[in-house]
Amino acid sequence: MSGFIKNAWYVAAQSLELADSVLGRVICGDPVVMFRTEAGEPAILEDRCCHRHLPLSLGKRVGDRVQCGYHGLEFDADGVCVSVPGQSRVPPGAGVRSYPTVERYRYIWIWPGDPEKANPDLIPDYHWNNDPGWVSNTGYFYVESNHQLLVDNLLDLSHVQFIHATTLGADGVTDAPLNTTRDGDRVHIDRWIMDMPPPAMFAGAGDFPGDVDRWQLITWTAPTHVVIDVGCANAGSGARDGNRDQGITIYSNHTITPETEKSCHYFWHHARNYRLDDEELTKFLANAAETAFGEDVDILAAQQCSIDTAGDDWHGIDINADAGVLQARKIVGGLLAGEA
Amino acid sequence: MSGFIKNAWYVAAQSLELADSVLGRVICGDPVVMFRTEAGEPAILEDRCCHRHLPLSLGKRVGDRVQCGYHGLEFDADGVCVSVPGQSRVPPGAGVRSYPTVERYRYIWIWPGDPEKANPDLIPDYHWNNDPGWVSNTGYFYVESNHQLLVDNLLDLSHVQFIHATTLGADGVTDAPLNTTRDGDRVHIDRWIMDMPPPAMFAGAGDFPGDVDRWQLITWTAPTHVVIDVGCANAGSGARDGNRDQGITIYSNHTITPETEKSCHYFWHHARNYRLDDEELTKFLANAAETAFGEDVDILAAQQCSIDTAGDDWHGIDINADAGVLQARKIVGGLLAGEA
Amino acid sequence: MSGFIKNAWYVAAQSLELADSVLGRVICGDPVVMFRTEAGEPAILEDRCCHRHLPLSLGKRVGDRVQCGYHGLEFDADGVCVSVPGQSRVPPGAGVRSYPTVERYRYIWIWPGDPEKANPDLIPDYHWNNDPGWVSNTGYFYVESNHQLLVDNLLDLSHVQFIHATTLGADGVTDAPLNTTRDGDRVHIDRWIMDMPPPAMFAGAGDFPGDVDRWQLITWTAPTHVVIDVGCANAGSGARDGNRDQGITIYSNHTITPETEKSCHYFWHHARNYRLDDEELTKFLANAAETAFGEDVDILAAQQCSIDTAGDDWHGIDINADAGVLQARKIVGGLLAGEA
Repeated sequence: MSGFIKNAWYVAAQSLELADSVLGRVICGDPVVMFRTEAGEPAILEDRCCHRHLPLSLGKRVGDRVQCGYHGLEFDADGVCVSVPGQSRVPPGAGVRSYPTVERYRYIWIWPGDPEKANPDLIPDYHWNNDPGWVSNTGYFYVESNHQLLVDNLLDLSHVQFIHATTLGADGVTDAPLNTTRDGDRVHIDRWIMDMPPPAMFAGAGDFPGDVDRWQLITWTAPTHVVIDVGCANAGSGARDGNRDQGITIYSNHTITPETEKSCHYFWHHARNYRLDDEELTKFLANAAETAFGEDVDILAAQQCSIDTAGDDWHGIDINADAGVLQARKIVGGLLAGEA
Repeated sequence: MSGFIKNAWYVAAQSLELADSVLGRVICGDPVVMFRTEAGEPAILEDRCCHRHLPLSLGKRVGDRVQCGYHGLEFDADGVCVSVPGQSRVPPGAGVRSYPTVERYRYIWIWPGDPEKANPDLIPDYHWNNDPGWVSNTGYFYVESNHQLLVDNLLDLSHVQFIHATTLGADGVTDAPLNTTRDGDRVHIDRWIMDMPPPAMFAGAGDFPGDVDRWQLITWTAPTHVVIDVGCANAGSGARDGNRDQGITIYSNHTITPETEKSCHYFWHHARNYRLDDEELTKFLANAAETAFGEDVDILAAQQCSIDTAGDDWHGIDINADAGVLQARKIVGGLLAGEA
Repeated sequence: MSGFIKNAWYVAAQSLELADSVLGRVICGDPVVMFRTEAGEPAILEDRCCHRHLPLSLGKRVGDRVQCGYHGLEFDADGVCVSVPGQSRVPPGAGVRSYPTVERYRYIWIWPGDPEKANPDLIPDYHWNNDPGWVSNTGYFYVESNHQLLVDNLLDLSHVQFIHATTLGADGVTDAPLNTTRDGDRVHIDRWIMDMPPPAMFAGAGDFPGDVDRWQLITWTAPTHVVIDVGCANAGSGARDGNRDQGITIYSNHTITPETEKSCHYFWHHARNYRLDDEELTKFLANAAETAFGEDVDILAAQQCSIDTAGDDWHGIDINADAGVLQARKIVGGLLAGEA
């Protein structure tokens, strides 16, 4: 599965990463530079001066413009070159590419494809990130694997029993059946693990006298957006039938941005809507998420290396737990073919 | 000289490297994972899960099986997948490649080629390594050159006068004539250096009042096994005529395992059959060998870099001392052609 | 602009780099080894033994020869192999390539092209480096960019206003007009910045009560030799009309040697002909030059990376300040075509 779906919104940065500076990053193979105008509006341009190639991210912000650090050419938020030192007239057509940009849900979003199609309504829902009814931890990982491998990882949580044995995992996950359904360019993967001990993270976050009923309700939105409603309630309390109030829920949301064919940017929030002011709990959950997701990062890099060295005639097998992964990959394949 | 002779025994690991863990290594271009069954028998499998590529060496041993660290698939010592979490039935044919494996002479041996041809009787003789009549030092080097460059190095000991001037070397080595003979897939290269001062290592190991008669008797067995009988005796004591009892001998044995076209694993033992309980002497010889072989490792990496940057039209010369090297390379070329 | 002009003199090393040792360096893609004969004459040979590829720079000097560190072959200053250990006769024709070599102006010069054309009179004038009427600072940078990018940098000093804002730069540079003239394989680029405050380096080196008239008089000699006469005098003192005696001048001279297509060696001197014994001033200027040129080195590496990742269809623009750069590149293109 190679190539990038270009007509899609991706997260370019967390809002907090972009203050007065200019920030360079590679997205879907394109080097881009981000900066804010004086009014605070984010702009994203091609990170390569149209004069002599220097990354504009080595320059600085000057008012509403970014100034190249080599010969001082200046570009506005639309990428138009508006000043060339030493001459009164800017060569016609001088400029760099600009990308549709939106700031929403504590993220700066970029549309790497056809600007005509960049409809902000297509940005997926991550309202938990800045909804006052929720409190969230957040983080970023640089992952040395293709973005699809990380999507795969999030769509089959049976791995938590092995990779995250000491954090998110617990026995019994893989024994619980999966229910996979497709809904347009979305896939839902639901799993209920009934009447089992709570895993370490939930035991610390909740107050469970005995076993719990536990859920993992995954929604993937093409190409790389994954929201996971995970939680537990006391066993037998009827959570599966909709009575989840006395349990605890975390919206573990993930969004992945391709960097190259073999690397990606991984942004995540972990949001809860209970004990909002409990700083100790916030720290506990932040640490649990950071630790667990870091375990995935190591595995993914090793997986990518192994794929790179496998011969062209290598063939693997699929297992039952891959139902959601295969569904999502089929949709991605169709979208890639449609753009090609 | 590119490619690997596959139908041959190579050392995959020292026995002591493989305890309760799983061990990953690349051999002749293949990533392999090693582990022991509960009975202690070594097994070597392809180091790539048949499900999603993760190296099995990132997993763990579970009874007589290795368990993948990602989704928990389990493989027995024959490489058969015998358990897939979340489903009662293993997909037919699921498994990874297994390699013929033998433990002998303190080494785990692997046969990377056709398993039908893996006759343990073909393992070359390294009995000195665990013969109670001998005591040996041992070591491992990771070498950043093609394995043949290291074989070449061992088959022309004239280099000791230059690379190992302060350890194994001594003046006069290159002046002594070489006698090279072929014996099937073996080459013998003998050199006697008569009536010269002993080099540093032998001066420290023996008790020589004056000059010595010194021998370097090399036996190479295709593709990469080299045993060198090196020693000295008091000059004129008749060592060359077979009277070597009052001299000292070291069986310096070397076996090399290709990793990639540009790297190899270098395993060695240095065995002696005198002053077996002299710990000081053991330390002295261990240090001498470790230091000297380390000098070779640096030279070989530089040689490989230089080869890589030489143009296709570069032509070098051979010298008299290359007689054994050329003989061995001719045999290797024939074996490679036979496998192709 | 790829490839190297081979029929030209380049600096291989500073004289002081080559004492009793042997020194390896890659020049125009060729690995070379430098050493001095017992009489002190420099010699430059191919850095690859004709026997088994080992770089001769890992060997040592033995009298008037360099000895290979692997099997001890010896080569004279003409590259002829004159000794092979273990045999009385050297194979006919054994040897390595030698390069025309001249020591002048505190540099060891090499001619990588046709030796027949290596006329020492073609070595460009860098007499300031060892003229007793001048005192100079000197330095070397390893630059991770194509050599032409560094030449470009030196031929358009408008960049000092941006890269070197705190050292060599000052406002007003880019507003001053450039005068570019061609003279055979030379290009002159002159700029006068009239009646402006002195930049930091000159303010520290001179004693200017107010504004200055400042000059940047660049002479580029193909392929990579750049001498810049930079200085200032009190504003209105007539420096532009030739009356420069009461001002201060620095001959900032630069010479660049290609290593690979993406790296080069950067040698420079900064020479002045006033306050020759002022050690404090020497230290001040050395520090200023080192700091400023180091700023360029970082920019050039980033520029090269950006060029490497730009698509083949990328097209940039030129600006007015590029007049000298474009003139020089045209001459280089012609010389490259002539050699091809």
